[in-house]
This record gives sequence, C-alpha cells and structure tokens, in this order.
Amino acid sequence: MSSTFGSNIKVTLFGQSHSEGIGVVIDGLPVGETIDLDLVQLFLDRRAPGKSSLVTARRESDTPQILSGLVDGKTCGAPLCAVIKNTDVRSRDYDQHLKIPRPSHADYPAYVRYKGYNDIRGGGHFSGRLTAPLCFAGACCMQILNRKNIKIGAHLLSIGNVFDTKFDPVSTNPDLLDEVSAKPFPVIDDNAGKRMASQIEQAMSAGDSVGGIVECCVTGFPVGYGDPMFDGLENRLAAAIFGIPGVRGVEFGAGFAAAGMLGSEHNDPWYIASDQVVTSSNNHGGIIGGISTGMPIILRAAFKPTASIALEQQSVDLSQNKNCSLTIEGRHDPCIAVRAVPVVEAAVAITLLDAIS
Amino acid sequence: MSSTFGSNIKVTLFGQSHSEGIGVVIDGLPVGETIDLDLVQLFLDRRAPGKSSLVTARRESDTPQILSGLVDGKTCGAPLCAVIKNTDVRSRDYDQHLKIPRPSHADYPAYVRYKGYNDIRGGGHFSGRLTAPLCFAGACCMQILNRKNIKIGAHLLSIGNVFDTKFDPVSTNPDLLDEVSAKPFPVIDDNAGKRMASQIEQAMSAGDSVGGIVECCVTGFPVGYGDPMFDGLENRLAAAIFGIPGVRGVEFGAGFAAAGMLGSEHNDPWYIASDQVVTSSNNHGGIIGGISTGMPIILRAAFKPTASIALEQQSVDLSQNKNCSLTIEGRHDPCIAVRAVPVVEAAVAITLLDAIS
Amino acid sequence: MSSTFGSNIKVTLFGQSHSEGIGVVIDGLPVGETIDLDLVQLFLDRRAPGKSSLVTARRESDTPQILSGLVDGKTCGAPLCAVIKNTDVRSRDYDQHLKIPRPSHADYPAYVRYKGYNDIRGGGHFSGRLTAPLCFAGACCMQILNRKNIKIGAHLLSIGNVFDTKFDPVSTNPDLLDEVSAKPFPVIDDNAGKRMASQIEQAMSAGDSVGGIVECCVTGFPVGYGDPMFDGLENRLAAAIFGIPGVRGVEFGAGFAAAGMLGSEHNDPWYIASDQVVTSSNNHGGIIGGISTGMPIILRAAFKPTASIALEQQSVDLSQNKNCSLTIEGRHDPCIAVRAVPVVEAAVAITLLDAIS
Amino acid sequence: MSSTFGSNIKVTLFGQSHSEGIGVVIDGLPVGETIDLDLVQLFLDRRAPGKSSLVTARRESDTPQILSGLVDGKTCGAPLCAVIKNTDVRSRDYDQHLKIPRPSHADYPAYVRYKGYNDIRGGGHFSGRLTAPLCFAGACCMQILNRKNIKIGAHLLSIGNVFDTKFDPVSTNPDLLDEVSAKPFPVIDDNAGKRMASQIEQAMSAGDSVGGIVECCVTGFPVGYGDPMFDGLENRLAAAIFGIPGVRGVEFGAGFAAAGMLGSEHNDPWYIASDQVVTSSNNHGGIIGGISTGMPIILRAAFKPTASIALEQQSVDLSQNKNCSLTIEGRHDPCIAVRAVPVVEAAVAITLLDAIS
Repeated sequence: MSSTFGSNIKVTLFGQSHSEGIGVVIDGLPVGETIDLDLVQLFLDRRAPGKSSLVTARRESDTPQILSGLVDGKTCGAPLCAVIKNTDVRSRDYDQHLKIPRPSHADYPAYVRYKGYNDIRGGGHFSGRLTAPLCFAGACCMQILNRKNIKIGAHLLSIGNVFDTKFDPVSTNPDLLDEVSAKPFPVIDDNAGKRMASQIEQAMSAGDSVGGIVECCVTGFPVGYGDPMFDGLENRLAAAIFGIPGVRGVEFGAGFAAAGMLGSEHNDPWYIASDQVVTSSNNHGGIIGGISTGMPIILRAAFKPTASIALEQQSVDLSQNKNCSLTIEGRHDPCIAVRAVPVVEAAVAITLLDAIS
Repeated sequence: MSSTFGSNIKVTLFGQSHSEGIGVVIDGLPVGETIDLDLVQLFLDRRAPGKSSLVTARRESDTPQILSGLVDGKTCGAPLCAVIKNTDVRSRDYDQHLKIPRPSHADYPAYVRYKGYNDIRGGGHFSGRLTAPLCFAGACCMQILNRKNIKIGAHLLSIGNVFDTKFDPVSTNPDLLDEVSAKPFPVIDDNAGKRMASQIEQAMSAGDSVGGIVECCVTGFPVGYGDPMFDGLENRLAAAIFGIPGVRGVEFGAGFAAAGMLGSEHNDPWYIASDQVVTSSNNHGGIIGGISTGMPIILRAAFKPTASIALEQQSVDLSQNKNCSLTIEGRHDPCIAVRAVPVVEAAVAITLLDAIS
Repeated sequence: MSSTFGSNIKVTLFGQSHSEGIGVVIDGLPVGETIDLDLVQLFLDRRAPGKSSLVTARRESDTPQILSGLVDGKTCGAPLCAVIKNTDVRSRDYDQHLKIPRPSHADYPAYVRYKGYNDIRGGGHFSGRLTAPLCFAGACCMQILNRKNIKIGAHLLSIGNVFDTKFDPVSTNPDLLDEVSAKPFPVIDDNAGKRMASQIEQAMSAGDSVGGIVECCVTGFPVGYGDPMFDGLENRLAAAIFGIPGVRGVEFGAGFAAAGMLGSEHNDPWYIASDQVVTSSNNHGGIIGGISTGMPIILRAAFKPTASIALEQQSVDLSQNKNCSLTIEGRHDPCIAVRAVPVVEAAVAITLLDAIS
Repeated sequence: MSSTFGSNIKVTLFGQSHSEGIGVVIDGLPVGETIDLDLVQLFLDRRAPGKSSLVTARRESDTPQILSGLVDGKTCGAPLCAVIKNTDVRSRDYDQHLKIPRPSHADYPAYVRYKGYNDIRGGGHFSGRLTAPLCFAGACCMQILNRKNIKIGAHLLSIGNVFDTKFDPVSTNPDLLDEVSAKPFPVIDDNAGKRMASQIEQAMSAGDSVGGIVECCVTGFPVGYGDPMFDGLENRLAAAIFGIPGVRGVEFGAGFAAAGMLGSEHNDPWYIASDQVVTSSNNHGGIIGGISTGMPIILRAAFKPTASIALEQQSVDLSQNKNCSLTIEGRHDPCIAVRAVPVVEAAVAITLLDAIS
C-alpha cells in the first residue's frame, strides 16, 4: 500500500529495478490538457543514468510508452498510464545480497518485512530507478502548472561540505528556475558547482560516496491552498519527498535554522505591494499553518550518501547467522543527490497540482 | 479534510481554541486494551498551560470526558471519543486580527482560504490548543505500545543556540526516556536545561520569543514494519509531525548532517549481537527504505519561535488595504518547543501503533 | 475504521447506544454556510424514538450540542462536532446477550470480531441509535443542498406486502418531496399508509416485526458529477446506505426490474426540452456510468424486519457451548423502515454534497 | 479518482477500450504467493469476447503481460502490474457518438463531466473491456483465497424472465461453485440455461438486448471479518460491484424480499453443529452488521440490458442542439450479464481478500 499517493490526483507507481518494466498510473489529471511528450522526455533525461562520469554506468533510454489516458495528445479524464521497459539489466550482481544485506540498504528490513520473497535484484521496488516513472508524472503535472504560471525549480544546495548560493526566497526570478534546471550540473553558482563535482570525483575515486542537499523553489503558487493540521501543504510535500529513496530530512523556509532564531528575527512582516499582500522576508517558506501565503515556496531535502560503495564493509550472513565482510559489485551513483534534483521537482509538482485540483 | 489521519488507527481532531470544546475520535484501537485515564491525565498535564512562568498564563484543566469507546475501562472496538471543554477563554483579545493579520500566523492565508469565515479567536482551528486532544490520543496509544515494550521519549535538544546532549542512538536506555519525560523541563543535561530556560526568560522579558528543536527516540520497535515509497515510516511520521503547529523541519537519524558525510562514514555496519541483527552505529535512525530495522528510531523536529510576540510589528489592514503597525495582546508561550515535547511523542505514538496494527 | 466516510466532506460517527454520548464530526463543509439548528432539530425529530405507538418506547430528546465548527451560526472551515447525550438508558436488558447472541443481530460476529470486548448494551456501536448523529450530518448537508435547489425526499415504498405509489421518476415535483417528508407517516398515498400502519400494528401485537422498502428521490442535482468505475455515484451512495443498520439491498432507477427488461424498453431516449438535454423515461435513475445525468436520482433501500422480536427464538449459549432458547426483552421498533426514512435522506444528502464539493 | 479501490489490497485499473492497452496494478498482495498464470488465463477466458454467438464478435486474446510484482512466479511485495494490449479495434464505429449520445450510455454525462475530451471510442474508460484487468486481479486474489479454502462461484440467476435455481444458501457445496463456473453457460439448471440462451438469441435477432441477474456465493469465509457502519462487508462489496458497468442493484441474503417478511420468518436461528456456531437458515447472507458470520456469503447483482442495440432510437445532436434519431453500429453483447458472471466473482474475490489481509 505504499505505491499510491495523492488525493485529487492519484499517482500509482509500479515496477522493480530489474522487472520487465516500470511505470506509473496517474488518475485525476484535469481534462483537455496537452501533454507534450518531447518536453516530458527532456525532463526524464535530466534524471536518466549514463550521462556523465558522475553517475552510474547503467544505461537506460527511459522512453515511456503511453498505454492510456491521452487522446490526440490531450488528457481525456481516464487514468494516464506510462510504461518504461527495463533493458540494461545485470541481475547477477545482486545474488549475494539475498543473504548478506548491504549496510544502510533496505535489504535486511525488507527481508524481514517480505519474508525473503522481496526482489533483491537492483534493489527491487526500493530502487532509485522507480523515480523515473515518478519523474514522468511530475513532468506531466509541471506542464499543467506552468500554464498557470506556477514554476518549480531545484538545485544542488550542497554536496558534502560545499554549498551553492541559496535561492532568493523573497524575489526569486522564475526564469532562474528554468535556467538552473537546464544546466547539466544544476547549481546557481557554477564555481561552487565545480568544487561540488570535484568532491564527488574524489569520493568516487576512493571507492566512496557523498551526500547532498537539494533546494526547491516554487513561484507563482497562489495564496489560500492547503489545509491546517494533518493535510497541510508541508505534510503533503514532506510525505511525497520522503518517498524518494535516500531522503533523511525535509525543511521549509528557514527550516532547522528557525529553531535558533528569535521571533522578532523569524517573523515575516506583511505589507502591500501592487495591491498584493506579501512579506518582506520569507522565513516561513510560502506556507503557514499548512496553507499557502502566495510567497515563493522554499523547501530543502537532505540526501544521504549513496549506500552502495566499493569499499569493503561489515555485514552479516543471514544464512549462517554470523558476521562477515562484504564488497558490493554493480554500477552505482557516487552521489544520489545529483540525479535527485528533478525528482524533488517532480514530487513537488505532483503534490501542488493535487492541492489546487 | 485536514483533521483526520491514520490508516488502521484513524484519529480525528475537532475544536477551535475558543469553541465550546475540543476533542478527538480514535477509531481502530485494538480491543480489550485498558486505558488508564490517570496516566492519560499525567501525560496531558505535561502539555497543559499555566504550569510555570515559561508558558502562557491561560489556565485550562484539560480534563477529558470520555463519551464512547470504553467499556469498564477497556477499549471495545467502537471509536473512542474524548472531549475537553474550553473554559478560560478571552476572545476579545483577537478581534483586531480579523482585519490585521499577525506576522507568521495563519491569519492571512486562512482569511483567503476560508473567505473570512474562519474562527479567528485564539487562532481557531490553527491553535496549539488542538494539540491537547492529539496528546490524549497519543497517551492512549503509548499505553498500548508500552505493553509491547515499545518506549517513546522526547527532550528539548535545543532552545535558541543552547544544545542539550543528544540521545545515544545505538544503546538508548529505555528508562532514560521515562526519566527525561518526567522532568518539568525535559532535557538530559540539566545544566544545559538551565541555560535554555534562561534563554527563554530573556526572550520573554524582551517581549520576544525563541525557537527550539525536539528530539524523539523510540526503543523496542520491532524490525520489518512500514512500506517502501510513499507509505514509509518516515513519510507517515513526517506527515504526522508537520501537523503540529510551528514545525519547520523533520529529520531522521543523522538527518541533514548526512548530506555532509561520506558513505563510509554514514553507512551503519550490520552485525549479530545476542542473535539479533543490529547496527554498530545508527545514522539511519531506525528506518531504511521506509521500513523499521529494529534499531532505535531517532527523529528531530524544528520548531519556529512563537509567532505572537509583544514587540510592535508591521502588518496590513485588510479592511483598508494599507500597511499598518500591530501590537499583539493575549497570553502566549515565549517558546512553543517546550510544551511541544509530549506532543511530538504523541504524534509518534499514534503513527507507530497505526503501523503495527 | 468503519466510522468515517466521504472524500471532500468527511463524516465521522462515534458513540454506542448506551455510552455517555453519541455524535459526529463533519470535516470539509463549505465555509460561510448558515446552519439553522431549529431546522436540524425538526429533521432529527422525524427520526427520534418515542413519538408514536409504532416505534420504540425509548425516549431520547436527541438535542445536539455543538462543540465546534460554527461561528455566529455559520460554518467556519473547522470540523463541526455535535454531541447528543444518551439519557434514557436501560442497560440491564442486554446482559444476557453477551453469552446468548440474538438471531440476525451482530452479537455473535461482533463477539468474534472484538474478542468479547464489544459493548453489548443496546447493540453498542451497531445500534440504530447511531443514525441520530448521521441525521444531524445529513440535515446540515441538506440545508446547503437546498440553497442550490437540490431537494431530497424519501417515503415508505412498502411495508410487508403493502405498497405505496412510487415517485414519478421523470417529473417529480420537488414540493412533493417536502410534503411527504413532513407527514408523520411518510407515504404518498395515505390510504396505503393506513394499511401499512395496520401491518406494523399486527406484527407488533403478535410479538413480531416486519420489513419495508424506502424509496428516495433527488431533484435538481446537476449533470456531470461523479466518476466511472469504483467512485461512481452509485458506488458511493450504496456504500453510504449500506452503513444504515438493516439494509439488505440497494437499487437505482429500474433496479432489479431492469434485469427482466429488453434494451428497447429500458433505454431512456434523450431529447431536448427548454434547452436542456433530458430523457423521456428514467429507468437509469439519474446516474449512468457513475455520473449524474441531470434527471432525478431515484434509489431504493430494502430494510429487513427488526431482528429483536418478542417471540421466543432459538440460539446458543456461548458460555456453555450448547443450544438454548431465547426471549428478548427491551424496547424495540416493530419496523425499522419507518424511522429509516430520514436516515436514507441523510446518507444521500451527505454523499451528494460530498460529490459536488 | 475512480479507478483505484481497496484498503489493504489496492487495485488500480487503467486503459480505455481502444487505447494502446489496458491493465491493472495490484498493491498489497500477501508475499510468497504463487500466481499460476495458466489458471489466470482460464479465468480471463471465461470473460473474453468472441467465444460464442451470444456475445460480441470483437476478438481479443486478452493475454496479460506481467511487468512487475512477481519473482519466480511468486508475489514479492512490490505492486503486480499486468498489461493487456488492445488489438481488434474498430474506432470508426464510434465517431458519431461524440455529438449524438447513445441512450442509457454514459456518452452524455461523460461529455459534460469531461468537457468533451473523454475518449468516446468503444466507450473509453466506461467500457466493459475494463473488466478484463479487473478479472486479472480477481483471478490472482481467488487463487490465494482458494488456498485458505475460501471458494467463490457465481451463476446466471436470471435472463429476462427466465430463472435458474438459486444457490442453497445454507449448505452450498463448494464443488458446485467450481462446476457451475466451468460451464460455458454458467447456470445450475441447464434446462433453464437453454431457455435463457433462447431469450438472448430472440432479443439479438430482434436487434434488441436483455438484462439478467448474477448470483454469487462464497463458502469457507471465516466468521468475524469486516466492520460496522461504513466499512462493513456489504458496503465494500456493493462499492466494488457497482464498479462493474451495467449494475443497477445489489442485494445480500434475502435481499429485497426481506422487506416483505416478518421478523419471525427472516431471523436465522443460531445453533451449534460440529462445535461451530451456525444458522439453520441464511436470510442474512453471511453478513450481519457488516461482519461475516461464517455462513456462506450470498449476494445478487442486477444487470440492465445492453444499452447498445441495433434498433433505431431517439437521441439529440449536441452540435446542433436538436433532437434526432440514431442507429448504433459496432459489435455488442446482446446480454452483458452473461460475461459479467466471472467479473462479479472477481470483484468479490478482491474485496474479500482485502478484508482478511
């Protein structure tokens, strides 16, 4: 019961890393909306593996096939189903993890949860590969949001201890969101980007991996959407973003830094500009009490370092019930945060289109 | 549609700060469980206002009346409904906020969302007062969890820039959880606690407020519960905790710090101890891929400083469409994090009992 | 998890027949809607016991107390909670059913389902008394629907083998719906009503009970609401109506009779009248493929005879694991269909307001 | 939001009659269960078109391709996705219905609901063809139920005014369920079956269609599953069955006939047989108060006559806003009830496996 989310727009993901295919069913999209599949493909390409030396060598064309939901390129009210076939699959790399779980991977809890029947190949249903159909759904939602002048963009705020410039939370330029997204390495400050890339290369050459933070900004989202308490925009966005493998924290606006501030510093004064009620600072991140304020929505997601590293690690042999050492084979990103940038955008796009539908 | 959450155990909150009463309906509790109402009251007292100089002067006995769901003190399968009457209500303090929204309060987005019909008195449905029935539900769930040797405890990890000792994430003593909870000011290191209290007093005397972080630990939670993707334990816990007013960030295990780590630092090696598969470090915080590992669950929630401060602030007069200044009257906590400690425990208790039911 | 239903408008019922109180939480009502509590009371009075010789002698004033959700008589966006206290309670009548389940009552399956912890007094959570808060919710929804010129009315189509006239499915007069509802014995043809009443009296004087059918009609419901497949209006209405104790069947339009018809008889031709697309017959009952057609919605619910009868019956003694005979004490309606008329209207009102919200 | 249903087992359908493909995602199946795809195919063949002269001439092999969820033929905890390609598609037959809606079809309400963007070809998402993936899901669930000795079978209780023998509601032989299902024309009394077939042929040769009732029986379903009020087994079963196109009524046990009975006739006495608590009659149909009693579950679904008939009918031309006549082309079943028999079994299987999972 973990693969469906959303209320008005319901997204159901399926597939395992090495199954016949992966895909998504999107129910509840507004009707009569054109889905430009070339634009969708460009979005998927941002996430796709095999592009550069910084990501896994697995190559997947990630070309979705549309089974239903579109008539003459427009949404028709029926669920939109897209399927991506798995092709470049090397399952033999994974056989050992059935009995020797990888540290910080879901192998062991999944083994208990699914009584050993879970698909271990490529991480099965836990694989980052499932974010491809999530991106498909996000790309569709984003096209519809864009027509309403709602823009969503994300960048790598940090890799290891190197930080990019933050988005300006008050007067973010929507064009910057597009511009940053279009970069092969999505940062605002390209010099910071070079130092980040170098951290990743360093980790990779050491057989290691490194973590990072993705910051996402939404402009043009109207005031007055969302609900208090358990169905607030923060709750829904956090629930969606924690669905991306490797996320360890989510924060909005000033986030954890708010805990170190005084009220007089943190409070965002209201004022009127061009007949709009706005705030002069944006520590609240565009959402108060679960409801949008009309200011840019700002959130950050912390990604752990890739769990699969080449260095030898300690684990247990479940078949013999004893400790053992483990060396992981296979092709892995040295930093999952990099390819997670469009995935965060996708999760946000789906959640926000759902909230205004 | 924001006041109900949970799957197997469904919790529905109702009430506004100054309405006749507030309360909760809990559906799906396991049957035949004794609910000790004296213990519930002790838990509610930890959250209750009017106890010390560090919290609001509003005094509410917060004594719940049970309308249904218990027969001879035991759960009977029917929804448990508890009501708390609102008594010490001073609604006149709030009249002005109908037209002059308070900075960093939901007044303005709620005004748009509810077309001006929302209950402004005491913050209405957005009030921290709604956490009283949430604590009622949490206290019931915690009694049931305790019988399964699952213990939940939280403390103030920080107030402003003063930090308490963290919970030991590997070998947390369950008794420590009880001991810390029982303290009037719930910290591990009482000296840090004194410095925290002094930060709060300082802010209060300056007409200001201050933020803080609550850290929560769960011991004894069994391996193999939860689901991948959108129904993972992190997703559910985050969705519940963001339902507490004032939360700006939620993180698990190493949390945001994980983004600055190498895989070789962050990965938690598995080993076998007393026939159990455990980890020698706990950066993963007891949950991997949405599923519990059997290690202590560790999470942190960042609370913003109380939005209502005595200092004069800038806002807008919606009735005249012009900027104005605002001085907030009323009785307010100088630091919402303090009373949030049992509230976080309650949200965690409900979510975890739901997950194993 | 059985006491909450609805999507946009979520209704949560609580209480047992003999608990301290029963009630309802309604979340998601449109804001700024006046709820006339006198009109609500009139609606509740239609369902209330103790009115005539044809219904149970239990007397309950059924006066709801509003705990939250209304400000100055208008919905404010926060959940509306109403509580009705249980007063005229005679629990001793029920003691024996803990071990000797009543035929065609839920005593035995509930005993297994709830491991003997269920509240047996007055039928507990299974009691028809829970339809009082359902009627409260329905009365609120109906006031809002009426302002949109959507009218809902029901009548007793049959008692035993005596039948009332059916509603005209094509050109139902909305005023007739009000007129029939206002009658103490809600039938179209009062002569049929007299014969029905006589059937009930006859059953009652024989220590027996009798079943009946309630027919409900909705006028003014606009075309184009609902969804295909599992979230169609029929699915939602049926799911709501089967929540009323004693319902054994639900049908729409021609209903079961449709199975005996030819397509050429059953099909309803479209034509244009006053610029509206309408049908010249209404065998479809206002809903096709889960979506409203704009024609009157027609449905029928079959109610079984009251299970509690005075005649001696056969049952088992669970404590001794042997067969025994049973004589039921207590105060029971001889025909639950009579008081079910407003309850069916209530379930329909909630479902339809939900569908257009 | 209409294509997903279920709680513990969530079934999501997608596809339109003439889209690239149709299919289903099943999330939450118990792990380690073998799914025999040959048995699934046999089940699908019972529903498939093109078998005899009594059903549509459209020929579809209906061979599902499994994209995910099975490892070595066993469920692995990840969602099971199966896709069926649409092949024998003749979309030109449907062009006219974009502007001239077919009587008793969803064309017109769907046109309003989806603003004219709905897929009209073959009925789009409203097509009976969507019951193929529903049958796939049902066949999987049924295999799992069978391993628990729960058997589900259905037959044609009536076609037009010809009735088959009813299932014995008290001592149904589970083998009979299999035996009836295996028949090409699923009836208990083959003589009645012949008269039914002749009614269908008669209607077909007159360019007309005819309705029918499907009766379903479940043996071996254990006592104590389900919930009172809105999540009762009746509510869930009815919500699932009304998802099948053409259903106009659903009843349990004695059903509508219960409304004409006295309590003393309708009540089912409890007694003890072989240490089991059972009833000597089964007017309650195996469910009381939403909870299973352990007796056979008996339900009936009324199907309207096929809406698409060859006879000329009256309709409207939406493009010219005037009345017109209409002759429907295309290949249509003369009686949808026939192929609905396994579909009802499938809906019941999914719902019941969900209820005990």
